[in-house]
Amino acid sequence: MKIALDAMGGDHGPAPCIEGAMQAAKELDVEVILVGDETTLQRECARLGATDGRLSIRHAPQVVEMHESPAAVARKKRDSSIWIATELVKHGEASAVVSPGNTGASMVSSFFVLGLTKGVERPAIATSLPTLTGEAIMLDVGANVDCSAKHLEQFALMGNEYGKHLFRKPNPRVGLLSIGEEDSKGNEVTKEAFKLLKASTLNFIGNVEGREVYSGTADVVVCDGFIGNVALKISEGVAETIKKLLIKEISSSWLGRLAYPLIAAPLLNLKRKIDYAEFGGAPLLGVNGITIICHGRSSAKAIKNAIRRAKGMAEGRVHELIQRDIEETIASPSPVEPSA
Amino acid sequence: MKIALDAMGGDHGPAPCIEGAMQAAKELDVEVILVGDETTLQRECARLGATDGRLSIRHAPQVVEMHESPAAVARKKRDSSIWIATELVKHGEASAVVSPGNTGASMVSSFFVLGLTKGVERPAIATSLPTLTGEAIMLDVGANVDCSAKHLEQFALMGNEYGKHLFRKPNPRVGLLSIGEEDSKGNEVTKEAFKLLKASTLNFIGNVEGREVYSGTADVVVCDGFIGNVALKISEGVAETIKKLLIKEISSSWLGRLAYPLIAAPLLNLKRKIDYAEFGGAPLLGVNGITIICHGRSSAKAIKNAIRRAKGMAEGRVHELIQRDIEETIASPSPVEPSA
Repeated sequence: MKIALDAMGGDHGPAPCIEGAMQAAKELDVEVILVGDETTLQRECARLGATDGRLSIRHAPQVVEMHESPAAVARKKRDSSIWIATELVKHGEASAVVSPGNTGASMVSSFFVLGLTKGVERPAIATSLPTLTGEAIMLDVGANVDCSAKHLEQFALMGNEYGKHLFRKPNPRVGLLSIGEEDSKGNEVTKEAFKLLKASTLNFIGNVEGREVYSGTADVVVCDGFIGNVALKISEGVAETIKKLLIKEISSSWLGRLAYPLIAAPLLNLKRKIDYAEFGGAPLLGVNGITIICHGRSSAKAIKNAIRRAKGMAEGRVHELIQRDIEETIASPSPVEPSA
Repeated sequence: MKIALDAMGGDHGPAPCIEGAMQAAKELDVEVILVGDETTLQRECARLGATDGRLSIRHAPQVVEMHESPAAVARKKRDSSIWIATELVKHGEASAVVSPGNTGASMVSSFFVLGLTKGVERPAIATSLPTLTGEAIMLDVGANVDCSAKHLEQFALMGNEYGKHLFRKPNPRVGLLSIGEEDSKGNEVTKEAFKLLKASTLNFIGNVEGREVYSGTADVVVCDGFIGNVALKISEGVAETIKKLLIKEISSSWLGRLAYPLIAAPLLNLKRKIDYAEFGGAPLLGVNGITIICHGRSSAKAIKNAIRRAKGMAEGRVHELIQRDIEETIASPSPVEPSA
């Protein structure tokens, strides 16, 4: 299986991408097509000793910068590494595309090059979150800011297929992010979505509160992209703040400084557990192919994990299963009474 | 100054309320009227040695349970401790009301008994958050789920007056919670609110991302009650999860167990810093009086801090300053072009 990797998009240049691809080729039985400026990639590969025959380079003359808008990418950057990497999937030369670059550029490339899955109104980005009991999926975390109840229902269907694949569970627990567990709690959109989900064939466990997201109550947490993105960034903010305050507290007492070497390893383990970069990236669901979006700061290990996820999702034909579910729902919609 | 305390509403019964009131009377030069079942309160006061002459009891025959809806409270619980405590403010017998009970019951009591401030369309709950540099205010965190841009503008005005009081700053930095720093980022409501705030006389610093909330970029963070509540609960979830994982990690290695006693004190300090219960409760802004809502799990110390906050806000006449600002804004609204 071949995976197309946008090797130019990350914050730290091509090196983590090339190293991640080397590890993936060695450990995961995949071929990786590094897409980007040929001269740069050849030079970096030589420098890093990337001589593995399972790596190849595909030239792309343009690069998308982090600040560029999706609209500008669609208009002017059709020779960029992300766009050309996505075209490799479209033309069957690769089974999936992985990018640590500009999220909007990944979205717009997949939207235009691969196209929306038939019946899907909006694609969604599904991220993985660490929980007390393992891992949960949250979607959408940023592709769509103003969503209808119908959009949330589709996110639930897409998240469900992704959850089945990721957790190897036949019926992942699907929850709706809201402000109370009771059916009646929420804003207008979530209350309407609650009815649709309750009437669906999903294993819908009802509303989940923000507090429960990290306790592992649900396998799949559904929300609109505005709230999902705020929730994700708030989580990072809290984790970052706690870390800084903890280090400050510990180093402000001599007993703490004495203890620090002893707890350094547990702290590092904890960091790994809550570091979503380690989780293998976030797929864009609802397009005709497998697209994995990674953080711009991705390490080589994070890139390898994203390639692993891309491979698994391509093998599992997750995008085709999503299409089947969406088509079935459109053919026989949830029997929900119109709201007053 | 007299403060009315709903002494029946907390999760742990009247004891933390009575102890908090005792501490407040002693340290803060206030009188506290304990409102609730007279027999119960007399017995508990005797048991706890609460003989301070600055404490008094006002009988209320009903109690609101945590699960009761605001509508049910307004209909059937007008003899409850929270309702009667709020009436003491209305009738000038107390300068502020503090309740660790059902948030909806506090809101509905203040709404009906004190009434909305003239010009205010929706009241808002303003919570305090710990940041890397101190403390920030976020509002609304749960009073209103579906808000217009106009509502967000009013929350900003109310948060600004509260921030001036709390931080003793003439021009608190007011930010709008959104998904990107650029003016153009957000959902329909926040984009419209951005224009209103930019045209206002507030010290508006633009959009703040979730990540920045805890870094202390803004003094006042404005959002609708749905997103504010989710953000708050997500924060609690992350903090709780990190705590549990940290303890698990540390106690899973013998080096960690060895170090634990050495870092116990820093960990406790950290817990205090991020424990919003210590912060003195959250005022309901936009009503004709001072109402402070505390967490149901409030400790005696949290109750004392809430009484301190209530006293300060009553002395500062914060509710009257809010009324003045709202009236001024209505008299000369922000010159914003109609959106396309």
